Amino acid sequence: MLNFDFYAPTRVLFGKGEQDKVGALLKPRAKKVLLHYGGGSIKKSGLYDAVTASLRRAGLEYVELGGVAPNPRLALVREGIALCKKEGVDLVLAVGGGSAIDSGKAIAMGARYDGDVWDMYETQRPIESALPVAVILTIPAAGSEGSGDSVVTNEETGRKLGYGSPHLRPLLSIVNPALFMTLPKEQIANGVADMMSHVFERYFTNTAHTDLTDGLCETVLRTIIKSAPIVYADPSNYDAWCEVGFAGTVAHNGLVGMGRQQDWACHGMEHELSALYDVAHGAGLAVLTPSWMEYVYKTNIDMFVQFAVNVMGVRGSYREPEALVREGIARLRAFFTGLGLPGTLTGLGIDDGKLEWMAKRATCAAFGAEQPLGGLQKLYWQDVWAIYQRAL
Amino acid sequence: MLNFDFYAPTRVLFGKGEQDKVGALLKPRAKKVLLHYGGGSIKKSGLYDAVTASLRRAGLEYVELGGVAPNPRLALVREGIALCKKEGVDLVLAVGGGSAIDSGKAIAMGARYDGDVWDMYETQRPIESALPVAVILTIPAAGSEGSGDSVVTNEETGRKLGYGSPHLRPLLSIVNPALFMTLPKEQIANGVADMMSHVFERYFTNTAHTDLTDGLCETVLRTIIKSAPIVYADPSNYDAWCEVGFAGTVAHNGLVGMGRQQDWACHGMEHELSALYDVAHGAGLAVLTPSWMEYVYKTNIDMFVQFAVNVMGVRGSYREPEALVREGIARLRAFFTGLGLPGTLTGLGIDDGKLEWMAKRATCAAFGAEQPLGGLQKLYWQDVWAIYQRAL
Repeated sequence: MLNFDFYAPTRVLFGKGEQDKVGALLKPRAKKVLLHYGGGSIKKSGLYDAVTASLRRAGLEYVELGGVAPNPRLALVREGIALCKKEGVDLVLAVGGGSAIDSGKAIAMGARYDGDVWDMYETQRPIESALPVAVILTIPAAGSEGSGDSVVTNEETGRKLGYGSPHLRPLLSIVNPALFMTLPKEQIANGVADMMSHVFERYFTNTAHTDLTDGLCETVLRTIIKSAPIVYADPSNYDAWCEVGFAGTVAHNGLVGMGRQQDWACHGMEHELSALYDVAHGAGLAVLTPSWMEYVYKTNIDMFVQFAVNVMGVRGSYREPEALVREGIARLRAFFTGLGLPGTLTGLGIDDGKLEWMAKRATCAAFGAEQPLGGLQKLYWQDVWAIYQRAL
Repeated sequence: MLNFDFYAPTRVLFGKGEQDKVGALLKPRAKKVLLHYGGGSIKKSGLYDAVTASLRRAGLEYVELGGVAPNPRLALVREGIALCKKEGVDLVLAVGGGSAIDSGKAIAMGARYDGDVWDMYETQRPIESALPVAVILTIPAAGSEGSGDSVVTNEETGRKLGYGSPHLRPLLSIVNPALFMTLPKEQIANGVADMMSHVFERYFTNTAHTDLTDGLCETVLRTIIKSAPIVYADPSNYDAWCEVGFAGTVAHNGLVGMGRQQDWACHGMEHELSALYDVAHGAGLAVLTPSWMEYVYKTNIDMFVQFAVNVMGVRGSYREPEALVREGIARLRAFFTGLGLPGTLTGLGIDDGKLEWMAKRATCAAFGAEQPLGGLQKLYWQDVWAIYQRAL
């Protein structure tokens, strides 16, 4: 096990009706709130009315900025920062999924910074502070409700970049699985693929003596694998949504990756797909992850046997480890396609036209100094290109 | 799954050498520190010198209060409170195991309170604030490094009472498993029984649809069951200590019990043993837990079959569930005695002289209004008495 520094201070309120407490809970921390959200779904569902009523009951002022799109855009972030500065906002309340939350975090960071917030995403330089962020989650997927990470797309350059800081961890996240019942099936499936990837990126490691976090990763994955098909078939199943929703938060608050070398190659490769083709992040991950596994498993076959047996439930002869691994990967691919997710890049509407260029950009080979992706196995642009091609 | 409120803001620094960072990390939060510890072991080991050097390097003032005993005493707590008030201490740094930490939390609470701190333990009334607490852990056991709980013994009345508040959660806990290598075997075993009990008290539940936390509990327990005998046999095994030490923190920071009705009867029954006979908390739990299981398992036999199979690795016929459960309990008892822990109250030097009286005190039947123990099965004083007798 490696030394680690674990810090996940977000208070998580979980369960039916918890959103009605938001005003009272934020009252000691804020005078004027930026209410930040996406499209019209929170107005249709009544959530918008419930949240604004709770803020008013607590005597909190608020200003609004809606319109966050999937793969949130820098232009709206800049608009939110200007609004916060003009209005003297002292807390950002993001209501939505990962896009609204990540956009809200970017605004919270930019509101305390004199330059352009995109600087941070490009330079990765640490911040000293940010406005506090609170969250009401409507889509279990990104895990942003429990993390200090934010991913934003610069629509002028087509680059999608992430930034992380302890100052961006929400002080409060309200997770009410009943709010997930109206999600379209496609969004359910994308979210499931995303949260599973957050565990995979931490799980596949060359670090030895990681029994506890191995087990934590595996139980989060098994929980999702059991309950995701239930909510996909019947989105009104509250009990199964509780499992998926809680798993999505635990998957990405950092705990399951402590003390382990992590990987994150699939996220790096997927960001290129989303930035260029605007595909859903989860769908891109569902396509790339099994192809990545096939490409790298020989680098640490014991790790992949453990995945096949402990996560995917494969039984067979340990004297044929490659057969176990292949069966585990096949089951994962079948699990994803069973949720209606695409099995190939072609299924995402992506052809081989730009794959080489994307591989060079994902690894920064396009910008001069190549930075290979991955922890389990270093992937150079040729490797990434091969994985893209395998996924076609 | 039940609604829940999860808040575990403690920053955990884990691994070799991390204690040397304590001064720099506390510097932004404190001017004058109370350094609180137990006996001479931290002086013999060199830890005392390392910590005070780190505080001095950071330019932090400190005053000292040593002498914390197992089952920490109210008299020393009161002395610490007076010292903090007199010296203007603004942070309590507890260096030690659960006793030093719990004593430190009581001091932190009392330093911000005008009355007698024992009031809080007796009345359970919520506090508004406490001095910040930081921890350097030397005994993995109580989980107090990640919890908001404190248990103190009033040596005048013989009562051992617990108190919990979010304000008592440490802001920083440093867990360096290399510091555990010099522990006596008895203390290793007691600690293991204590941390396992923290999971058991949360695991055994009648709440349905708790797959994720079931799995988290089970993986923490399996990790301990694998690695504890390794460190018991060879306390110099750093890798195994990492598993046990991390498991002890996760066991009690609250996560594995979220959304579940919890039990805590064994802790309630054990506190009487420790208060009256000054036995080690872990040893008392190791004796009582299997007897409690035998007494209550019929109340929810499916839960105990799951324990036997998923935690203790029992294989057999599911058409004979009681046989599975009995084998699971037998394996747990054998695990404890394999670590040199007593199997009976007699082995702890306790006879049946005061059992009835202790049962009445544990359930408050001795004080008029009886409050039964337990969540899985309510235990009245007659039940507690029966469990004590079964454990003789």
